[in-house]
Amino acid sequence: MVRFGKRFSKPGTAPGTLRAPEVRRVEETSIGIMEYGPERLDEWRVGSVEEALARRSGLAVTWIDVVGLHDVEVLQQLGETFGLHQLALEDVLNTGQRPKVEAYEDHLFIVMRLLHPNDDGLESEQISIFLGKGFVLTFQEIPEDVFESVRERIRHGRGRIRRMGSDYLAYALIDSLVDHFFPVLEDLGARLEELEEEVIEDPDRKTVGKIHTARKDLLVLRRAAWPEREVVSALERQDTPLIGKETRVFLRDAYDHSVQILDMVETYRDLATSLLDLYLSTVSNRMNEVMKVLTVLASIFIPLTFLAGIYGMNFDREASPWNMPELGWYWGYPLFWAACLVLAGALLLLFKRKDWL
Amino acid sequence: MVRFGKRFSKPGTAPGTLRAPEVRRVEETSIGIMEYGPERLDEWRVGSVEEALARRSGLAVTWIDVVGLHDVEVLQQLGETFGLHQLALEDVLNTGQRPKVEAYEDHLFIVMRLLHPNDDGLESEQISIFLGKGFVLTFQEIPEDVFESVRERIRHGRGRIRRMGSDYLAYALIDSLVDHFFPVLEDLGARLEELEEEVIEDPDRKTVGKIHTARKDLLVLRRAAWPEREVVSALERQDTPLIGKETRVFLRDAYDHSVQILDMVETYRDLATSLLDLYLSTVSNRMNEVMKVLTVLASIFIPLTFLAGIYGMNFDREASPWNMPELGWYWGYPLFWAACLVLAGALLLLFKRKDWL
Amino acid sequence: MVRFGKRFSKPGTAPGTLRAPEVRRVEETSIGIMEYGPERLDEWRVGSVEEALARRSGLAVTWIDVVGLHDVEVLQQLGETFGLHQLALEDVLNTGQRPKVEAYEDHLFIVMRLLHPNDDGLESEQISIFLGKGFVLTFQEIPEDVFESVRERIRHGRGRIRRMGSDYLAYALIDSLVDHFFPVLEDLGARLEELEEEVIEDPDRKTVGKIHTARKDLLVLRRAAWPEREVVSALERQDTPLIGKETRVFLRDAYDHSVQILDMVETYRDLATSLLDLYLSTVSNRMNEVMKVLTVLASIFIPLTFLAGIYGMNFDREASPWNMPELGWYWGYPLFWAACLVLAGALLLLFKRKDWL
Amino acid sequence: MVRFGKRFSKPGTAPGTLRAPEVRRVEETSIGIMEYGPERLDEWRVGSVEEALARRSGLAVTWIDVVGLHDVEVLQQLGETFGLHQLALEDVLNTGQRPKVEAYEDHLFIVMRLLHPNDDGLESEQISIFLGKGFVLTFQEIPEDVFESVRERIRHGRGRIRRMGSDYLAYALIDSLVDHFFPVLEDLGARLEELEEEVIEDPDRKTVGKIHTARKDLLVLRRAAWPEREVVSALERQDTPLIGKETRVFLRDAYDHSVQILDMVETYRDLATSLLDLYLSTVSNRMNEVMKVLTVLASIFIPLTFLAGIYGMNFDREASPWNMPELGWYWGYPLFWAACLVLAGALLLLFKRKDWL
Amino acid sequence: MVRFGKRFSKPGTAPGTLRAPEVRRVEETSIGIMEYGPERLDEWRVGSVEEALARRSGLAVTWIDVVGLHDVEVLQQLGETFGLHQLALEDVLNTGQRPKVEAYEDHLFIVMRLLHPNDDGLESEQISIFLGKGFVLTFQEIPEDVFESVRERIRHGRGRIRRMGSDYLAYALIDSLVDHFFPVLEDLGARLEELEEEVIEDPDRKTVGKIHTARKDLLVLRRAAWPEREVVSALERQDTPLIGKETRVFLRDAYDHSVQILDMVETYRDLATSLLDLYLSTVSNRMNEVMKVLTVLASIFIPLTFLAGIYGMNFDREASPWNMPELGWYWGYPLFWAACLVLAGALLLLFKRKDWL
Repeated sequence: MVRFGKRFSKPGTAPGTLRAPEVRRVEETSIGIMEYGPERLDEWRVGSVEEALARRSGLAVTWIDVVGLHDVEVLQQLGETFGLHQLALEDVLNTGQRPKVEAYEDHLFIVMRLLHPNDDGLESEQISIFLGKGFVLTFQEIPEDVFESVRERIRHGRGRIRRMGSDYLAYALIDSLVDHFFPVLEDLGARLEELEEEVIEDPDRKTVGKIHTARKDLLVLRRAAWPEREVVSALERQDTPLIGKETRVFLRDAYDHSVQILDMVETYRDLATSLLDLYLSTVSNRMNEVMKVLTVLASIFIPLTFLAGIYGMNFDREASPWNMPELGWYWGYPLFWAACLVLAGALLLLFKRKDWL
Repeated sequence: MVRFGKRFSKPGTAPGTLRAPEVRRVEETSIGIMEYGPERLDEWRVGSVEEALARRSGLAVTWIDVVGLHDVEVLQQLGETFGLHQLALEDVLNTGQRPKVEAYEDHLFIVMRLLHPNDDGLESEQISIFLGKGFVLTFQEIPEDVFESVRERIRHGRGRIRRMGSDYLAYALIDSLVDHFFPVLEDLGARLEELEEEVIEDPDRKTVGKIHTARKDLLVLRRAAWPEREVVSALERQDTPLIGKETRVFLRDAYDHSVQILDMVETYRDLATSLLDLYLSTVSNRMNEVMKVLTVLASIFIPLTFLAGIYGMNFDREASPWNMPELGWYWGYPLFWAACLVLAGALLLLFKRKDWL
Repeated sequence: MVRFGKRFSKPGTAPGTLRAPEVRRVEETSIGIMEYGPERLDEWRVGSVEEALARRSGLAVTWIDVVGLHDVEVLQQLGETFGLHQLALEDVLNTGQRPKVEAYEDHLFIVMRLLHPNDDGLESEQISIFLGKGFVLTFQEIPEDVFESVRERIRHGRGRIRRMGSDYLAYALIDSLVDHFFPVLEDLGARLEELEEEVIEDPDRKTVGKIHTARKDLLVLRRAAWPEREVVSALERQDTPLIGKETRVFLRDAYDHSVQILDMVETYRDLATSLLDLYLSTVSNRMNEVMKVLTVLASIFIPLTFLAGIYGMNFDREASPWNMPELGWYWGYPLFWAACLVLAGALLLLFKRKDWL
Repeated sequence: MVRFGKRFSKPGTAPGTLRAPEVRRVEETSIGIMEYGPERLDEWRVGSVEEALARRSGLAVTWIDVVGLHDVEVLQQLGETFGLHQLALEDVLNTGQRPKVEAYEDHLFIVMRLLHPNDDGLESEQISIFLGKGFVLTFQEIPEDVFESVRERIRHGRGRIRRMGSDYLAYALIDSLVDHFFPVLEDLGARLEELEEEVIEDPDRKTVGKIHTARKDLLVLRRAAWPEREVVSALERQDTPLIGKETRVFLRDAYDHSVQILDMVETYRDLATSLLDLYLSTVSNRMNEVMKVLTVLASIFIPLTFLAGIYGMNFDREASPWNMPELGWYWGYPLFWAACLVLAGALLLLFKRKDWL
Repeated sequence: MVRFGKRFSKPGTAPGTLRAPEVRRVEETSIGIMEYGPERLDEWRVGSVEEALARRSGLAVTWIDVVGLHDVEVLQQLGETFGLHQLALEDVLNTGQRPKVEAYEDHLFIVMRLLHPNDDGLESEQISIFLGKGFVLTFQEIPEDVFESVRERIRHGRGRIRRMGSDYLAYALIDSLVDHFFPVLEDLGARLEELEEEVIEDPDRKTVGKIHTARKDLLVLRRAAWPEREVVSALERQDTPLIGKETRVFLRDAYDHSVQILDMVETYRDLATSLLDLYLSTVSNRMNEVMKVLTVLASIFIPLTFLAGIYGMNFDREASPWNMPELGWYWGYPLFWAACLVLAGALLLLFKRKDWL
């Protein structure tokens, strides 16, 4: 189904109430920390916030990556340490958020969504990111790690990532999230291509279901892609000292990507609609063909059968010379066949002319 | 039907004329009052405005909740006491209003709608809210109480609600109204999921009616959700001293929720459309299948019946050796069967090739 | 048809040329005048402009209501007396105008439309209103009077209408025009409800025509409702001393109504579309059902008829023991019936399984 | 086809290159000049620019109307005389321009389109207008003259046209071009009305083609009407001393007309779509009716034919008393007929109940 | 398929990483240089950047045109020489970019797309343009040269191109890219015209596939045309000293063209949709016709066959005078034929009345 997740607070709940998601999508909460500056990098992975914070040594950027949201305590502790707003913390746990960016006094709260293709279509994971001065916090629901490539870049000191601040780290994470749409779109594009071939060459009853599934996946994609474009655009234009000028140039690049993704989603949507039209016409055409075969066959044999029925009648030939004298003719039977062939031939010619054959 | 309510003033009626709604949806008007500050809470429920107002003791926030609109007097008295604008009072009684917010000199008038699912689809109730300095007035048509959770929070002093002013109370009420869409949407989502399954696995004649009903419910939802988003957004941005800065942060949160609701409504609409397409294709496919069976059966048996008809003819075999000599052959009948089987086999092969079997 | 009226000036006509409408929709031009202040009210109805103007006694507000447009002279005289712009006068006569508001130096020119349901659908009448300092002029095509309720309010001094100026009178007239949509919409809503029932329970060939008519009426409504919303909104925001601050609050109320009307029109349009889909599916389903009955019946009897045809053949049983020995069996005929029943039963079972019965 | 004209410069051509249109739509270029002031009017029509310019006597307004575009020289000379921009001159010759207005330093360049209904649908002509201080140049492709009424007004000194400047002349020309849409729209409206009747009463195979043609014509209209509205609106708001304040009031009137035209185009588009839906349902309904007749007839006679087939079988009655004893019954044949009638009656009753008759 | 190209960076790749496109679309990278001023023109074509730069002699404008993107080194060297931003260079290689314009400190980066029709539909090539002070760099994927006409204009010193700066050169290139859409659109228009004829006169099963292909091509066109319009508009309004005032006038002209292209694309889209509707109705009508033939034939012969079946029955005429006495009548057989003819005639008349013949 197209819902992001079934989680929403009970209506009337006090805002800012932290409640763990109902479905526990990971066994153990795991906290990974990277602390780095241009010269040095520390990296460790622990299970509790205390351990995580204890080893900090004050390098330029701290990135704390939490996987698993069922432990409200972890969130609460991090919230207190870094001064995160209670409403933002609540949204981390309500995993059905739309992608958005919210500016609080000394940090930005960014929600992005990651799409995992599985058997039922696209599953959606919420990634929450806090960007503050010198720190970035990320919260993932499941450990399938989209951030590994960024970690690699930090480890190897590739590119400018080690030289720049937390804003660039946040950009890099967002960029990897945005770019993650591309392979998903490629998959969908390939599926649509296959479907197109299937529709043209050999559509069966399941084809329309597949088109429906593709359209549903495009709805999911679109619901995620539209607000993500807004998020990246808002970050680029955000009036905040947290994001430096140099990073904004890169955010423009990420914005380009997100526009491109949207563009592809919309094109694919149009394409899927066109595909459905094509499918329906094809089915209609097939029906037509079936009907024609039936009509041609029936039209030819129904009169012939009537003729045969005639000469199967038992009118008493002895009662009158007018009663079926044909039955006694010398050439009666051959003439009957001749009549049949002529009739059939004439009908075939007629249908040929009507272009039904 | 998709009308909010049939109530509108007779064209040409003087604006500000108070007339009770035609349909009395509750037996007795009931007035519930909560008066509270950080330290103290008074709560009582009475039947007349005089009683309601007499017990006020001047705490920070007064919340008067009126259930039942048929007693115009109640409205009139409250309007005079709190200086409410006549046009706003009229709108309280004309229960077909779109959600809106109107700024009067010293109070805000807010109309929201609450959706109750019942057997015929979604029924819509108008909730009118007045927010003034130190007071909040709410008017409900029926007692089914969406505000109970807020009352509970006030009673238990949970969260910040007791410490803050009437603006926060109004926010809390609006938030609970907005959030009330979520379970309705969840229901609809579940219904659509069931319908999808039904369409794929076993669509019958009632399925399309169910899809139609779902689309109608989505229309009702949409008509309520679009303006409610605007209401929350307008409140957040409203240039009024009645709403404090702190409360605006919370309104932004409510705004997020209302956007999410709209987003889901739009996605469900797309989904329902796709579902209808799927249904129509499925029906089309079934028709095709039915046609194919008929065509295959008829195509095979019509020629055979003709053949049988031939040898049922009574041409006088004695009149000529050309008249149906087959009837006198030693292997005539077996040969006839052989011909039938060959013909049927050939046709079956042909249909197999055409992929009709 | 969806045209407002066929009237437009011949291309190239000099602007401001006054020409009476081709169709004379009323016998005699009739001019009704109300002159009033808080204390006093004069009211008279005459046939010529001279009489009309002669009796004016200089009270605060003069309302001249002209019914019937074929007398260009009347218009010309009023135009000169009140200094109305020539282009506006031309538009009064070209009765196919869209609702609009135009600001001239010392008066506003407002065009509204009134919808009268008749047998062919909705007929549209143009109402032109001039608002100047101390006067309001209204021009109606036909006497069916939508303004009577306003006149009553003036006569009885109800509400604030007698105390306020010409701007409030103009508001009251516009408000009654806007509110006049409500009963029309109610009618349409009821028709759609009936149609929905008809589609679900007993659609026939005329149903789709009725849906088409409803859609056409909605087009007419929409064409009138969209610009009227703009008119009311423009009046509320118009930068003119002709409309006082107090009246603007009331215009906001009228604006709310016009938005509500549009909202209902759009919802009804969606509903009519959904209704058409429902109708088409229902027709499709019926076709399916018809096809199934034919297919089941034909599929059962065609093979049986073939079988009967077989044993009607005249193969010469004496020519060979292989020729139709079944005909001579002791249980031949009963066996034939048994075979028929078994075959029919098997086919019925098959169709049952395919869910066709 | 819906193309305005096939003309476009070869890609890569230097901008401002003047090349005559490929298709020569008029034999001889003809140049008509009107020079007038409040008191005097000179009018002459010649074949070359030199003659045209030689007779000018310096009155307030000069209007040069060129019919036929194949003589590039004419354009070039006029361009030099009046200081027209090379890019604008190029656009005069590239007759596939969208309606637009372009401000050059001391003149405005306006492109409008004129629609001529012909057998294949709507043909589109480009009218180019230059408005400068004291002069107006117009370029038409074909001589079918839409400006004659304006010329008449100048000749007879009707209205204010002789008293006002070149801006008013340009307005008058544009107004006559805008108003020229009305008769075209009236035609289309009448066609749609006829089509509606045809669809309801007697649709045949050509009906859908006619609806398609109407939709194509509406596309052409829309492509011309949208940008023309923008042109008139831009002229009204243009920040240029070339257009006086008085003329702007008249442009607002022309703008109203163009909005009305667009409004009608959009409504007709909706109507045409609804008409197509109606047509498709009607066709669907007819198919249904055909199917029902076939089904009822076949359903009744197929079982009867089977019955007749039974008693045509040749089971050897002498071989066994069980072999078709019915054939020897005294009431056999009448009983057979009775059975047939009962069966047929029962089936007819069944179909009656199913509402198929 | 509708993808611009399958290239996108692996998610998480450091931004600015240069990687050659996977598909090498040209054998050898070739670099063409034109250096020119009003008086002089140097032109040479080489294979390496060193050679290219070595021969520069400092004329006013340098245009370096690189064909083939697989040699990252070339890009890197040019980037360093002209100070191009790393993100822009990356986008040159990621050939799936949307058309866009990006302003860097001292140069503009412009991406355009060129459409090449081939057998599978429209193929899309990315053209990247850098505009700096005194230089223009262009990067093409394949050598099919759209810029040759511009080169010719430079060589022959035609127009103003040699007199003006690099901004005009960039305009000329962009203009030739924009105008390149026209022949593609002409082709599509012609295809749609042919399809329309085909649909009306002789639609077959492949027609709908062709319509689908045309719609896909329109999607590709639209995806390229929308952002290109924005690019040209952005260039015209860009606040940069790189583009002179005189050039902006020309850019406005290019903008007009791009709007016209979009306009045609949108109109063609509407047309293609209308064409599909037309096709579906035509198919529906044909089906109807087929059904009618079958129904008429079957309706006539089924009762006749039943009648013939009757008189083929073997009721024992000797057992009773009621058993098929007709068989012994003198006029029995002729009467049978008469009955057949009357029945058939009556049915034909009925069908004639129903307008089925």
